[in-house]
Amino acid sequence: MKVHCYPAPGQADREKLQGMPVVVIDVLRATSSIVAMLESGARQVIPVVEIETASRLVGADDHGVRLLAGERQGLRIEGFDLGNSPLEFTPEAVGGKTIVLTTSNGTPAIVTASKASRLLVCSINNVGAVARAVAAERRLVILCSGADGGFASEDLLCAGLLLEQLMEVVDTDTLDDAGRLALLLAGNQGAGIEDFLRSCDRGRKLISLGFEDDLVHCAGKDTSILVPEAKRGAISA
Amino acid sequence: MKVHCYPAPGQADREKLQGMPVVVIDVLRATSSIVAMLESGARQVIPVVEIETASRLVGADDHGVRLLAGERQGLRIEGFDLGNSPLEFTPEAVGGKTIVLTTSNGTPAIVTASKASRLLVCSINNVGAVARAVAAERRLVILCSGADGGFASEDLLCAGLLLEQLMEVVDTDTLDDAGRLALLLAGNQGAGIEDFLRSCDRGRKLISLGFEDDLVHCAGKDTSILVPEAKRGAISA
Repeated sequence: MKVHCYPAPGQADREKLQGMPVVVIDVLRATSSIVAMLESGARQVIPVVEIETASRLVGADDHGVRLLAGERQGLRIEGFDLGNSPLEFTPEAVGGKTIVLTTSNGTPAIVTASKASRLLVCSINNVGAVARAVAAERRLVILCSGADGGFASEDLLCAGLLLEQLMEVVDTDTLDDAGRLALLLAGNQGAGIEDFLRSCDRGRKLISLGFEDDLVHCAGKDTSILVPEAKRGAISA
Repeated sequence: MKVHCYPAPGQADREKLQGMPVVVIDVLRATSSIVAMLESGARQVIPVVEIETASRLVGADDHGVRLLAGERQGLRIEGFDLGNSPLEFTPEAVGGKTIVLTTSNGTPAIVTASKASRLLVCSINNVGAVARAVAAERRLVILCSGADGGFASEDLLCAGLLLEQLMEVVDTDTLDDAGRLALLLAGNQGAGIEDFLRSCDRGRKLISLGFEDDLVHCAGKDTSILVPEAKRGAISA
């Protein structure tokens, strides 16, 4: 398998994404949240880039079946039903519902890859299941969401955990800088994923905003076997 | 010392650069080339972003004292005296000359940091000398040039080699994602810097363009004790 790993969507070549299997990663927190929503029985998740677009998709009478979720600067958007903390997405809150989600980095990354042949949503929570789902592919793009236009090291760590599980089939000679760095990060964490999330830039930011429990949740390796997949603009498992 | 490490200039907050000591890194190859030019007795190096600006700074009659150097896509710019290979910058070629240099990533990074309180040019060749030159600073910005808007792992490696030498004075608790990744890279290379340069994205690109010898040169740790510094738009040692 030839793997191309992008540290952030702004560095992705959209041409190279088209028709390719793409795994999108945003550990803190969009892809962890999407896994949590679907684990709690949400019907589907619709990722959108703009707050206005999200609001248009959920009319005043829709809130029984559709919910608005998302964040800017880490905090719930004013007027939205839910933020972007995976712990919010309980069965009581989201069971049976369609969630319209807009986040700073994760949903733009998913939308960037909308012309992928397969578009899978990966977090540390479901990295093993995603690895099994893509193991037979001959080529793979890993698209990290990053932050502030650059990489986010927790996304690279998750990419590395994914690559570790694919080592038997990955052509490591052709791995790019981001893929090699991802493997190096994964190989150096051992059981210390939670500590890693606490010390990375976005982990520290989330702690300062009161979301420390989210880090514990997002650090849980293989707590889910769901493989959320986006088809025609909606993500389901 | 509090250190902020930017993986690429596009991710740098210009406000945070202003008035700060800044070390600029572009291992492959601009900062390695600048060190080579000054080692070979060049009078000064003037970094510019645009080819047109560079050309305007060197009139038809100036070539006895001023030379045009630089690359796009790794190759010498048409009509320029020199490219961006450190091996070109021999005493015969550049001794006593002013070099006007424009490159894809390195010179834009240097220009981005033009309002720094001190602006030092760092490569693997002179990383120890730069470390000694900044060891007494209370704050430091490391600005990697990167490539294609993202990080270049050889620049992060060099940043890590710099940080390793500053460990006694660096406040590691406040290191950001890029700084931590840089240290991880440096700690995992051992004596294998040349192999690392051969396998990274830009190293492979340079080999394909015929510049394999440049990698051997750029991998030489502490082969120079020069500390090139930019003042009022010109770099000298």
